[in-house]
Amino acid sequence: MDIEAALRNRGKERADVEERRRAAEAYTGASLEAVASYPFDPKAAATNVENMIGVIQVPLGYAGPVLIDGDHAKGSFLVPMATTEGALVASVSRGMSVITAAGGARAKVLSDAMTRAPVLRVDGVDHAQRVIDWISENTEAIDAEVSKTTSHGQLMEIETFPAGRDLHLRMSYRTGDAMGMNMCTIASEAVCRLICQNTGAVLVSVSGNMCTDKKPASINAIRGRGKTVVAEVRIPKALVEEKLHCTAALMAEVNTRKNLIGSAMAGSMGCNAHAANMVAAVYIATGQDPAQVVEGSLTLTTCEVDGEDLYMAVRMPAVEVGTVGGGTRLPAQAEALNLIGCGGEGKARKLAEVVAVTVLAGELSTIGAQAAGHLGKAHSQLGR
Amino acid sequence: MDIEAALRNRGKERADVEERRRAAEAYTGASLEAVASYPFDPKAAATNVENMIGVIQVPLGYAGPVLIDGDHAKGSFLVPMATTEGALVASVSRGMSVITAAGGARAKVLSDAMTRAPVLRVDGVDHAQRVIDWISENTEAIDAEVSKTTSHGQLMEIETFPAGRDLHLRMSYRTGDAMGMNMCTIASEAVCRLICQNTGAVLVSVSGNMCTDKKPASINAIRGRGKTVVAEVRIPKALVEEKLHCTAALMAEVNTRKNLIGSAMAGSMGCNAHAANMVAAVYIATGQDPAQVVEGSLTLTTCEVDGEDLYMAVRMPAVEVGTVGGGTRLPAQAEALNLIGCGGEGKARKLAEVVAVTVLAGELSTIGAQAAGHLGKAHSQLGR
Amino acid sequence: MDIEAALRNRGKERADVEERRRAAEAYTGASLEAVASYPFDPKAAATNVENMIGVIQVPLGYAGPVLIDGDHAKGSFLVPMATTEGALVASVSRGMSVITAAGGARAKVLSDAMTRAPVLRVDGVDHAQRVIDWISENTEAIDAEVSKTTSHGQLMEIETFPAGRDLHLRMSYRTGDAMGMNMCTIASEAVCRLICQNTGAVLVSVSGNMCTDKKPASINAIRGRGKTVVAEVRIPKALVEEKLHCTAALMAEVNTRKNLIGSAMAGSMGCNAHAANMVAAVYIATGQDPAQVVEGSLTLTTCEVDGEDLYMAVRMPAVEVGTVGGGTRLPAQAEALNLIGCGGEGKARKLAEVVAVTVLAGELSTIGAQAAGHLGKAHSQLGR
Amino acid sequence: MDIEAALRNRGKERADVEERRRAAEAYTGASLEAVASYPFDPKAAATNVENMIGVIQVPLGYAGPVLIDGDHAKGSFLVPMATTEGALVASVSRGMSVITAAGGARAKVLSDAMTRAPVLRVDGVDHAQRVIDWISENTEAIDAEVSKTTSHGQLMEIETFPAGRDLHLRMSYRTGDAMGMNMCTIASEAVCRLICQNTGAVLVSVSGNMCTDKKPASINAIRGRGKTVVAEVRIPKALVEEKLHCTAALMAEVNTRKNLIGSAMAGSMGCNAHAANMVAAVYIATGQDPAQVVEGSLTLTTCEVDGEDLYMAVRMPAVEVGTVGGGTRLPAQAEALNLIGCGGEGKARKLAEVVAVTVLAGELSTIGAQAAGHLGKAHSQLGR
Repeated sequence: MDIEAALRNRGKERADVEERRRAAEAYTGASLEAVASYPFDPKAAATNVENMIGVIQVPLGYAGPVLIDGDHAKGSFLVPMATTEGALVASVSRGMSVITAAGGARAKVLSDAMTRAPVLRVDGVDHAQRVIDWISENTEAIDAEVSKTTSHGQLMEIETFPAGRDLHLRMSYRTGDAMGMNMCTIASEAVCRLICQNTGAVLVSVSGNMCTDKKPASINAIRGRGKTVVAEVRIPKALVEEKLHCTAALMAEVNTRKNLIGSAMAGSMGCNAHAANMVAAVYIATGQDPAQVVEGSLTLTTCEVDGEDLYMAVRMPAVEVGTVGGGTRLPAQAEALNLIGCGGEGKARKLAEVVAVTVLAGELSTIGAQAAGHLGKAHSQLGR
Repeated sequence: MDIEAALRNRGKERADVEERRRAAEAYTGASLEAVASYPFDPKAAATNVENMIGVIQVPLGYAGPVLIDGDHAKGSFLVPMATTEGALVASVSRGMSVITAAGGARAKVLSDAMTRAPVLRVDGVDHAQRVIDWISENTEAIDAEVSKTTSHGQLMEIETFPAGRDLHLRMSYRTGDAMGMNMCTIASEAVCRLICQNTGAVLVSVSGNMCTDKKPASINAIRGRGKTVVAEVRIPKALVEEKLHCTAALMAEVNTRKNLIGSAMAGSMGCNAHAANMVAAVYIATGQDPAQVVEGSLTLTTCEVDGEDLYMAVRMPAVEVGTVGGGTRLPAQAEALNLIGCGGEGKARKLAEVVAVTVLAGELSTIGAQAAGHLGKAHSQLGR
Repeated sequence: MDIEAALRNRGKERADVEERRRAAEAYTGASLEAVASYPFDPKAAATNVENMIGVIQVPLGYAGPVLIDGDHAKGSFLVPMATTEGALVASVSRGMSVITAAGGARAKVLSDAMTRAPVLRVDGVDHAQRVIDWISENTEAIDAEVSKTTSHGQLMEIETFPAGRDLHLRMSYRTGDAMGMNMCTIASEAVCRLICQNTGAVLVSVSGNMCTDKKPASINAIRGRGKTVVAEVRIPKALVEEKLHCTAALMAEVNTRKNLIGSAMAGSMGCNAHAANMVAAVYIATGQDPAQVVEGSLTLTTCEVDGEDLYMAVRMPAVEVGTVGGGTRLPAQAEALNLIGCGGEGKARKLAEVVAVTVLAGELSTIGAQAAGHLGKAHSQLGR
Repeated sequence: MDIEAALRNRGKERADVEERRRAAEAYTGASLEAVASYPFDPKAAATNVENMIGVIQVPLGYAGPVLIDGDHAKGSFLVPMATTEGALVASVSRGMSVITAAGGARAKVLSDAMTRAPVLRVDGVDHAQRVIDWISENTEAIDAEVSKTTSHGQLMEIETFPAGRDLHLRMSYRTGDAMGMNMCTIASEAVCRLICQNTGAVLVSVSGNMCTDKKPASINAIRGRGKTVVAEVRIPKALVEEKLHCTAALMAEVNTRKNLIGSAMAGSMGCNAHAANMVAAVYIATGQDPAQVVEGSLTLTTCEVDGEDLYMAVRMPAVEVGTVGGGTRLPAQAEALNLIGCGGEGKARKLAEVVAVTVLAGELSTIGAQAAGHLGKAHSQLGR
């Protein structure tokens, strides 16, 4: 075997995969047996990866069942979580058990738009203004350009941010049940070509980082990206005591000192205990883009005493999920989506609500454990 | 089958996994066939997941080969990437090809410490000061307490942040080749018990969010968490033209308008194009914690003209990786680690350097494509 | 004299001021002579301060003349600056001299709205949605409520941000030539009373900190507050060399390494050299609220080579100024406003443009000095 | 009079000031009478301003008396506040009256260091490391260089932040009773010259923005700049009810929803109600640099129920004040300093504590008013 040539094989057939895998073994001296075991024709992953040599198997468990009262997700769910972090699924399941005992969690998608934010180079302030004016006067031509590139996507808004010779445009789209980054990128490039032809602006990058994709940014926390979702639960005093072995007051204290004050002192954009854990596990299970866990980490967790009961909620400003396209077509990922009834068209918002409730359950369990553990023991000992 | 009972089965044997899987199918009506196909005894994942019903297969490719001149990673590497995002591996490979043609990328671990930051409740300012004084006067007792809980971990520093009745402690540890969160958590709890017993402070949470784990926080960008790594490459003018079809000046312009100015305007902590993509793919492939992609997204990418050549670099303040423990023991993940010679003891810093160079390659490719594509065409047309 | 009683004197007449001043001397043993010297009847400051005992004299100089080509500010200006920081006025004047020699600076107000963001307590997600619905269905009643409280202010938009039992409303107003905080506060309280009466929500604070007033916040950088202003200047190569003793390339380098990269690494919201200096000096001179220097510090300074010339710009997202009300009525402050033709009605945007050009001049001078000083010497020595 | 020539007069004598003042009147048509009235020889301001034409008179009142139990400030204080914002002094005084009735506020300076952070250009990663090594191996030579430039300043630490070809150094100094920026700047330039001569690095800017001076930056919130100060007060239930007309629980609720949650949602670095107001008024009164109000706005206000009493505190990470140099020498400003016993040597930390307690009083009053007003009425009406 010509190892170097084999490594450059760009084929998508099983034979190509095998050739590369053996070449990689030869090149590195490593054994690659486990990765070769998977139940599908590698062509099924042809649009998901290049230089394929096999798969990584990420252990899959379920959390739940959990009762969800969403606008889209309704009923009892077993939530698929792919993770290698022991105790995570168990912890989330514990939270879900409390939520279910309390009558379920309410969930709601507040807004839904995917963004792409190109940056143009302009000559300066006046040129920027002319471009902005052109955009506002040519919305029909712009919409027509978008519709040439996509039948699912629909441009909703273009926000403009001039700074010197930079003109940033934040373009928001409806993208149906696709997460929609590719759709937005292609449409935005087309729109920018049109703008540049008519105004003399120069496209520097189809993403000028005000989108903001896969970086933690305040603009997403404030304006939202993908789905902005809230989920909440009220847990009666008796349940808090019986199942979480603490009190609503202690939980609110942990949340304030840790998620609010600690986050503020750390200069953190995320005010939560471990939202990224739940987001990552559900995203990997259901074929979402795991780099968008970054945006999931912007979650704000609030927790307070309501009478003597516990009220807990999460606000997730940027849940970027889809139920078609990307990794959702792969066999195991598709099964995981089906496990929560989220396969295919019309399911993206449902999926977003399931994600939010899963995050809520994880937050509830962790904050509860800390309130019961550290703080609870201290309170018992101190006789407070 | 009693479905509800089967769903509550907490067993770790293959029979338990199968029982749960069939119960989940029955409970939801979904088919779960693909997830059942994996080449290891589920007991191998016993400490990685609960309620296991199978695995998610994430397509695995390699990027490279890439020549790395690190303090720890030296030579030519095929970097494993598990992803479902088409074109990612191809793009990174393109960047690696340029890097290799340019003689390789330099990489270096600047610092290495895992952190855990408990929050204590104190009575107020004076009590906080007494606790701080006690800590500084009892370092030996504290170190002894740490060593009772771990043989690998070593406490290096405790930073103190008092605010009203909150006292946050940021504890930094050497953790050898483990990513080290569990080690740090256990040690920090023990230390806090000791502190509380002696000072009357009350432990509220072993993590008060100044760690900061899995949330995007300035404290990590400034102080570092896990490995702080830098990687750089110099690419001669001729290579930039031949392989990237643009110029160093155009690439520097894209980087400034997008990664620096755009990020600033978005209120972003990450000043990069898509570092999280590379981090996620390598982390999933090698059994790292994918929720820590959040910290990977804090990458700062710089790009400038050096003479007529291109200089590009990434600074990653928080690469939290390990080569022992966690998901690294699973069969496919262990193979992926071996592919880059990063299996087992003494390899964590090497892995961090490989991650940084992979991120650098992805940044190089993306910035180059945008400079060649949008901007390059404009410059050709404009005859600049 | 009964010192304690005199200190509690709340009168506004000169005799009251004198009594308090002498009482303060007696209470503290300090001499208070200089503060007693001022050219107006203290009743003129009756609505500006309580417990008045005199004035602080802040030295006043002018920077300029500077040529401004704004949408509102046109012509040659002497800009009043009240400061105790030696060299500041001289430095800004130097920048203005270069700007004027280059033909002047362009300035433009991009948007103009003052905000107030109350926070309501709601029962949860569904209640929040009902409140949001009520607001969108009752815009006429809301506008009518606003107009009962103010004849100058006009409500433009209410953005809604629900999170658990918190519902934040960000209300944007046109406020004419007043800075407008009081107007917005009173109107927002009235609107919130109406909302609460009709929806059962409870007003927690008329400012829930999403305004954001006098705190550095991304929401202001992104959405703007008060006037969002840009100013720019192009300086021919020869002028850069002759007057700034450096090159556009060196200045761009300083700006990138300091204002963009350094700011990013510091976790800074402000990407500028010292915008706050100029903002503070002009605000104090013209009777603005000096605490709003905080928002002025959000300035983004960009600097690049345009051909061989220098292009420099500032984007100031939140210039909160007024030319009526507040401190603008005091004698010296009114004179300072008149010095730039900004006294009274119809002048607030003009003032904002003057502020932006003054900041631009200060940035130009400082970046130029550093480029000429440190970097320039190094380049001379290195023969680059 | 040759107006243009007169405007260019750079003299510091009273005649020069008068000539400029009349020239400015002639140039602009504005009358400048009030600014000409001040009780000192303009040469006294020779090092504070250029192009002096007079003064701005900022109304001065006092807040208090307030009882302070600081490490440095002890006793009853009348705090000078220069402001044009009506009701501010009254509000702070109300807070101080409550604090005093409760037995006073505790205040403490936690740390004290002024910083300057030059940025050097290096060749890349390895060069950066050599510079860092040189620094750590030549601390004596560096200290000697510092001592050539200042007898008061003392270098305490150099933190190093390499990123590509940028090497940022954050240098921390003790500066005695001066705020110390000039001292640090001169010393840092000298140190950088030494470093560059020995390592081949190139100084780009003596401030690379990681200082961070007059921009809102996480590095200051986390690492501190100038004095890091905390102040706290405990207010018995009865006093809260009698004087603030509300309850500790309502105040804690306002603080959480507004200062913690609202600030988090706004992407704010400051978690307070209006700290900048108090900081600005005291800074202007006492001759501090009002642009450093920016850092004052980083205040974190916490508020909680302690038993049935109220506990409230502020953490101010960056109080940059001095009692010698700068504006402190001017007659009125010196009197204001004397009013609180903070004139001259050995008083800077005392002043910082007074500032912190004044901020605490303002926060207390505002949060109390909102709790009593909006929320209190609602609770009365709702019969809760």
